[in-house]
Parts: sequence; C-alpha cells; structure tokens
Amino acid sequence: MLGLMQEWPLLCHKLIDNAATQHGGREIVSRSVEGPIVRTTYAELRLRALKAAQRLERDGFALGDRVATLAWNTARHLEAWYGIMGIGAVYHTLNPRLFPEQIAWIMNHAQDRALFVDLTFLPLAEKIVPQVPSVEKVIVLTDAAHMPATSLSGAVAYEEWLVEADGDFRWKSFEEETAAGMCYTSGTTGDPKGVLYSHRSNVLHAMMAAMPDAMGISSRDVVMPVVPMFHANAWGLGQSVPMTGAKLVMPGGRMDGASIYELLDTEKVSFTAAVPTVWLMLLQYLQETGNKLPHLKKVVIGGSACPRMMTQKFQDDYGVEVVHAWGMTEMSPLGTLCTLKPEYAGLEGEARLDVQQTQGFAPFGVEMKVTDDAGNAHPWDGSTFGRLKVRGPAVARAYYGGAGAEQFDAEGWFDTGDVAHIDPHGYMQITDRAKDVIKSGGEWISTIALENLAVGHPDVAEAAVIGVPHSKWHERPLLVVVRKPGREPAAADILAFLEGKVAKWWMPDEVAFVAEIPHTAAGKILKTALRAQFKDHRLPTDNPAAG
Amino acid sequence: MLGLMQEWPLLCHKLIDNAATQHGGREIVSRSVEGPIVRTTYAELRLRALKAAQRLERDGFALGDRVATLAWNTARHLEAWYGIMGIGAVYHTLNPRLFPEQIAWIMNHAQDRALFVDLTFLPLAEKIVPQVPSVEKVIVLTDAAHMPATSLSGAVAYEEWLVEADGDFRWKSFEEETAAGMCYTSGTTGDPKGVLYSHRSNVLHAMMAAMPDAMGISSRDVVMPVVPMFHANAWGLGQSVPMTGAKLVMPGGRMDGASIYELLDTEKVSFTAAVPTVWLMLLQYLQETGNKLPHLKKVVIGGSACPRMMTQKFQDDYGVEVVHAWGMTEMSPLGTLCTLKPEYAGLEGEARLDVQQTQGFAPFGVEMKVTDDAGNAHPWDGSTFGRLKVRGPAVARAYYGGAGAEQFDAEGWFDTGDVAHIDPHGYMQITDRAKDVIKSGGEWISTIALENLAVGHPDVAEAAVIGVPHSKWHERPLLVVVRKPGREPAAADILAFLEGKVAKWWMPDEVAFVAEIPHTAAGKILKTALRAQFKDHRLPTDNPAAG
Repeated sequence: MLGLMQEWPLLCHKLIDNAATQHGGREIVSRSVEGPIVRTTYAELRLRALKAAQRLERDGFALGDRVATLAWNTARHLEAWYGIMGIGAVYHTLNPRLFPEQIAWIMNHAQDRALFVDLTFLPLAEKIVPQVPSVEKVIVLTDAAHMPATSLSGAVAYEEWLVEADGDFRWKSFEEETAAGMCYTSGTTGDPKGVLYSHRSNVLHAMMAAMPDAMGISSRDVVMPVVPMFHANAWGLGQSVPMTGAKLVMPGGRMDGASIYELLDTEKVSFTAAVPTVWLMLLQYLQETGNKLPHLKKVVIGGSACPRMMTQKFQDDYGVEVVHAWGMTEMSPLGTLCTLKPEYAGLEGEARLDVQQTQGFAPFGVEMKVTDDAGNAHPWDGSTFGRLKVRGPAVARAYYGGAGAEQFDAEGWFDTGDVAHIDPHGYMQITDRAKDVIKSGGEWISTIALENLAVGHPDVAEAAVIGVPHSKWHERPLLVVVRKPGREPAAADILAFLEGKVAKWWMPDEVAFVAEIPHTAAGKILKTALRAQFKDHRLPTDNPAAG
Repeated sequence: MLGLMQEWPLLCHKLIDNAATQHGGREIVSRSVEGPIVRTTYAELRLRALKAAQRLERDGFALGDRVATLAWNTARHLEAWYGIMGIGAVYHTLNPRLFPEQIAWIMNHAQDRALFVDLTFLPLAEKIVPQVPSVEKVIVLTDAAHMPATSLSGAVAYEEWLVEADGDFRWKSFEEETAAGMCYTSGTTGDPKGVLYSHRSNVLHAMMAAMPDAMGISSRDVVMPVVPMFHANAWGLGQSVPMTGAKLVMPGGRMDGASIYELLDTEKVSFTAAVPTVWLMLLQYLQETGNKLPHLKKVVIGGSACPRMMTQKFQDDYGVEVVHAWGMTEMSPLGTLCTLKPEYAGLEGEARLDVQQTQGFAPFGVEMKVTDDAGNAHPWDGSTFGRLKVRGPAVARAYYGGAGAEQFDAEGWFDTGDVAHIDPHGYMQITDRAKDVIKSGGEWISTIALENLAVGHPDVAEAAVIGVPHSKWHERPLLVVVRKPGREPAAADILAFLEGKVAKWWMPDEVAFVAEIPHTAAGKILKTALRAQFKDHRLPTDNPAAG
C-alpha cells in the first residue's frame, strides 16, 4: 500500500524558488571578475536564472544537454547553474587548473554543447574549444563593455545574451532522477571519469549538508564558499546555501590572504569552506597584519587532511571552530564532517585536537564501512584500517560512459580507494590511499602514518613511503627521504627515531635519500612516479634464496 | 538523461539504522507506564524493533497492514513504530482522548489488523476492540509480571511476545512511497479523516524538521517530545530525533508540571515540544516552587496559538527560547516555525514578541500561499488574509478512502481550512478558521482578532465572535460575551473599548451576553454550537425593508 502524500519531486529549481520566496531580499555579494564588488539578491538571481533558462531554450538547448562552465565563484556562475538546471540541462564544471588537452578530452567525452566562460579563462577556452566540435555556443560571463575580441566565433557577452529574455518562463518539469550536474574526477592515473549528479541527489545532499551536525547553516549565516564551484560540486554549497537562505559571499578569482580577509571582514562572513592551502595563506596574512576574525564562527576544511596546527590556530588564536571534513566528487561530495558528538563535546586542548584530526562522522544519508580485500567488514575500533566503502542517495552508482565499474559492487557500495579506520563513535580517519598501502604478509601498513612520523625528525625535509616488492612478505616499506639543507642524518638515525613509535613489523626495511620527491600539480606526493623510480629496487632484507 | 547516483530509497528503518550505527550508545529514557524510569539505547531499540518486525511477520502481518497503537510516549511505543514500519506495515496512532465509539469508527475505517496498547488504555481497548472485527491480535505494552487479566481474548504481554524473536531479521525492502504511518484528524464536524504518511514523506519531513532554521536538533541535544505520538505524528519527532542521534526522553503518561519538570531537570533536557496547555501547567509549577530551567534551551509550542505571555515568561524568566510553530496532521505535521531570520534576529522586547506571535515561516519543502475564495493569491503584506494553502512532499494529497477531496486542487495545493496572512519576510499568522471567518460585503472579518481584543476588556471573562446572516451584508459580526462574576458591563461599554482598535466596518453589530460559551473537549470555543444557538438571531442592524 502506498502512502497518500503529495508528489513533489526534489528538483533543484525549488531551492532557488524557496530562496527567492522566503529570503528574496537577502544579499549575494560577489567579487566580480571585472574587479568591483557587486551585489544582488536571491529574488534577482532567480529572475536572471529564469532568463538564462529561457534564453538557453530559445537557443535550442534542452533536457539532457551538457553545458560546461569554466568560471570562478560569482553570482553569474551560480545563476548560470540554475538556468541550466531549470531546462533539465546539465551544468558541467570544468577545472581550469587542468592542462588544456585534459579539459578538451573531458569536454569531448561529455559532449558539451555550450560553454559559459569567465574573462579570466577566455584565453584558455580559445585553445580548447577548437578541439571540441560539440560546442555550439560560447557565452562569456561579462557585459558588452568588458567583452574582449576573441578568436571564438559567435562568442557572446552574457549580459547581452541575457537581456533578450524577459524571464516570463516556467521551469521545465521532469523526474527527480534527471541529471543536474556533472564533474570529472582526475586521478593521478587513467583518464578522468565523469560523475553525474541528479536533481534528487543534489537536493538531498543540500539537506544533509545543512543539518546542525554537518555544516549547520541557517538563514542568519553569511556563507563564503571559497572552495571553487569547479571543485567537487562546490561541496554542495551551491545548493545548500540557497536552500537555507543564508547571505552568500562569492570570492571570484582572488583567493590570496588579503582578498579573502577583506571579504571575511567587510561582509561579516560567519561560515566559510576551502582546502588547507587557502587557509595557510589566510593565516599567514593574519599573522603578518595582526588582523583578527571577529565575525567568522566556523570554517570547514577538506580536500586534503587539515594539519593539526591549522585547527589549533583557528580555534585558539581566532576563536573560529574548525570542522574537518572528507568527501569525494563521487559523493556530491560530502562523506564525513568532524563536529563533536556528546561523547567528545566536552574535550579540550590536545584531546579535542586528537578527535579533530579525524575526518569526523557520516551524516544520515551516508553509510560507510571499512573492509579487508575480501570485503569483510572491520570493527569500528579506531585502529583496524581497511578499504573505505560508502553508500547513499548522493553517492555515484557509475561513471558517465561506464568507466571504473570495478569500484561499484552489487550491493551498491562504492569503493572510495581510500584506506581508513573508524572509531567506536563513528569518527573516520583516512590513513592511506588503497593503491599506496603496503601489504606485508597479509597485513596492511599505512604509508601516511609512517610519513607523518618521519617528517618529525629534525633533519628530514620531506618523506615518502612506498611498498617495494619482497619475495617473502609480498611488499615491504621503503622510506624515501629528502634531507634538510646542510643536514646529513644516517639511515640508522632516522630508523632509530621511528623505533617504538610504530609496530616492529611496520618499520621500513630501508631508507633511501633523494634530492627531490615528485609531486602532483596540487602539491601531493606523486607515488606512482616514485614507485616507477624504485620499481627495480631490491631491499637488503629481500633474500629469495633464504626463502 | 538521468543522473548516475545510487538508488537509496528514503525508508524509515534507515533512520533507526543510522541511530544505532552512529549513536548506538545514546540513551533513550522513558517514564514507563508501570512507573519507574527505564533506560535503553538506540542500538538496543533497533534490535528490539527488529524483533518486533520479525514477530509481526511470524504472526502473519505484512506489507500494507494497518497496526494500531494506543499508547503514551515510551521507548516501547517507538520501537513498535519501527518494527511495524520495518515489514512495510503501517503504524496507526489512535488518540485515547476521543470517545470509544469514535476510536472504533476510526479503527473500522482503517481496518486495523492488530493493536499495541498501553496498560493505561487496556480498559478503553476492552470497550473498543469487540466493535472492530478486523483486529486479530492485541499486544499489551508491558511484561508478564504486569500483565493484568483482560476480557480481550488472546491478548499477549509485549515482552512475552517479543522474547520469541531473536532479531536475526532484515528489514523488508519496498519503494519509498510505501505507506508508513496513519493518523486520523477529527474536526468538530463530520467523520474523522485518515492521513497516510509514506516512508519518503516521513524521512524528508525529519530532514526538514531538524534543520537549523526549523527545530535545529543536533546529537548534542536532549530531546523530550511531550507532544504525544498519537498527536499529529508526534510532530515528526519519532523520526527526526533518531535521525540526529539526540538523547531521547519519553515522558510516558504523566504531563503534569511536577512530572515534566522532574524529567527536564534530571535528564538535562535541552529541547522540548508540546501544546500550550502543557506549558501552562509547567509554568505554574515553576512559579509555585521557584524552580528554574538551567538545561532547557528551546521549546517548540504549537497545536494552538502560543499566548504572548507564555513566550515572554519562558524567555525572560527562564532563558528558554520559544519557537512558535504551526502544522497540521495533513502536513506530517510541520508547516511553519518561528525562528528568526536576520531581518528579525536583532529585535528585542515587545518588537521581538510581536514577531513571535506569528507562527513563523515555512522551511524548504513547504510551499504556501493565501488566496481569496476564487483562488487568487494575496500579497505577502502582513495584513491581507485569505485561505491558507500548502504544498510539499510531506503534505497529504488525499485522505484515506477519498473523503474530503474538495480540500485538494488540481495543482496540488491543499486547503488548510485556516485563514492567515503572511508578512513580507514570510512570517505567517493564523487569523481564523475559514469556516469561522465573517464575510461582510465581500470582505473578510477575523473573528479571532475581535475576540482577542474583546477579552482585553477588564469585565469580560470570555468572548466569541460569530457571523450572523444579514440581508444586506451577507454576514455581520455578533460578539458573544461571558461577563466576569460580579461585573455588569453594558454592550456600549464593550463596543467603546473596541472603537479605534479595529476598522469601523469590523465593529460587531451587537453584543450578546451569555452565561456560558460552549467548548470542545480540547477547550476550544465550539463555534458550530454557538452558531446553532444564534441561527435565528436577527441583528438590530438588519432591516430587509430598508435594503
């Protein structure tokens, strides 16, 4: 027997409708790409999104079309999202930090039919678009006065294009499973893979994200998403903030400490979110200037692990609560957030920081487990680590085009590729990437844990641990070290430093000193390259004859 | 094109699964019907709910069966809900305050197959069940030691029944639109009408309810739902509290001031919710004893309008934030909550109380409008009142069996039967019931507004306003007054008191003094009876010949 409740599909345009109806006068402040700070409201943004939808439809775009965006966080970019979704088309965010040929590959794979592009990225678009025959229309997110000459034929200035619509338009109707957004993940190996969000997943994710134990956003907040809209669905903030009606501050293309501080201060931002790199720049700026953060209450930090010192600085020096978080493009992206359950809420000092070093717990709507390679679930004991697998209404069930099918199992679990442990209260901590973890005699060794310890040695500038094939143990750890200038620690010194801090069988079999460790564009250690470098390395402990 | 996100139906058992996984050790404290305070946890409650589901299935109950409950708020009642829902059956809460023949009518209409009943209500059940042939099984929510003799053949003690299941059971799978719960509304006229909640509506409602701008419940809260589970789906707290993992305090059958205070104090309740009558008793108890409320942070007050004085007392004398709320059984039941948007957040004193006299604004997921009789929407100006209509995923689209179809329109709007205005910031205030509002010369007059003014006269004990047929104006207001003992105000005195406080054409045409005004069982003025009493009354202003 079915219930007798209304059919009210979870469609993203209802988020902006609600914002315009309930919070119509609330401000959206953007640092425009042209330079000045510009202000609009939810009511105005909705009207302009309706115009964008109307205009897209008039240009022949429709349900299911992929419409790319290559743009900073501004009101224009956000209204383009809602305009695109409002006709059932799919916003497809492109990461301008990728190589042009990667972006072109992604656009060809997605078969994008149109592109919204910021002035900043027009030169990049001029390189890419000629390689993407599916693109029929390029709209430059500026007005006529700022529209530059471009080699892209038929490119139009957004404001010119928009003015031809009157906004007398109704959002299209479709089922809630309709695709709404698209974002490609780009790992260190293999081709990028496309994640296809639905209206339902975006709306449910917005609700999950705004909960008091997750981000806890209310209409009284002033939210600045520093995390770019092209990074993992903007951590859902493009949906959750309009849903709550909070004032929105969009930082545009300037993410240096001074620019971020200026907006935090003048707009009285109470809530912000970004990767650690951004906060490193801000904290340095604050230290240099002596400025404080009297308005800011909460900062969500994710994308990579938040250093303990950063949490401590924000909390102790500036009175800002840090919410350490973890997610993935494939999860819309929220996975876990480190707010404090009552079991931990009373902790202070180092004990509190210990908990905050974990990535926190999963909100309702995210199921998780850690398993061994055979899929057996590990206990939540805070130490047994295994493959982290997740399930939920905002988790991908496949990639666009079917790549990466091996990451999804029959019961609906998505293998994140991360290795983690979960404590008895549900707090998860990433300990490694599955492809980096070392499998020694059937047991797993965390390379990240070893690296974190090794960099604590006063003579070590950087450290990386990789597994090297071993005839008896399958793999054993090799510790690769860059020494600090002028320091000459011996391998034995460094091993002695680790002694007693890890289980005996975790101890690296060898220390290799190198001049440089290879990195990704984002500054992460490129272990694939390191493993390639050491692929023929024979560990001193490896003696096949001794079997 | 559809998105590629996981199919993860919104099923209520996922709420209790999440509670048991993420907040397994968190306490649920109940004042048991047998007397003592008893304690359990979410993990334990889930296990017992699984046993209940397993046991129900073994007894032959299945998807779609209606299973009635006649019980107070206790952990047993809540686990029965989850057990019932876990096999796809439907919990059907019965209001023990109705007459036995009304309850029997409702059970026959719903065709309930089983009944969970508290010891308190066993005598009532003994009267009712023999009139309801569909009931095959009666389970008394107690243990063998407390099981009384009963005339109900085959009645079993819950604990005896439950012990036969081992909990090795998996929740049944079904689509999210499956019926989950049922609650009948009983107006002052006509037969009761059944509302049938779905799993989807219950889960979405829980998410809407827990948002920071709605109830704002976190895992750090201690929540005591004083509102009974048989009252309008317990305001969603049976779902939203497990979803957040907050500690739950169930007050059982004792709602007097001393009993409620005892739990607020000893269990450190931070959040509670009930109708004004309960809070009147508590405030009186606090005044008599001089006790304070150091733990309580927030109280949600709804069911009927919250008196201004009550809001003021809670806030000024006890430091407890009042959230005035409005809802209906047909809305799962949340409609609006009066938390403060930034436009109002800075208000203090009387200005703040003015806002808090409204029932607040609708969260994302509730759309509302006020219209004239022809369906034209009124502006949100804070004064133009009209029929309040709502739409959303947790709003009914029909009543069970098809009664009341005239309340639902083709566009999905449900006519609440209330009359209200909405201010420019979305704050809604109920001004009347649609059937009570007076239609004078095509304009509407609010009877509640006139009554609220009239009771301000020092000699008036109670006042009611009804519309009386008028040959020229269609209807005109008659003010019915009960004088205070020993006072003898004249009609002219009372009218003079109203003068200048309302529009001239709102002024009652006559004042009628009566010894008593008829009331419903819940203490509301019974206007149907009053109108019947005055149905042949001719107003002095009604002069057909002059028409």
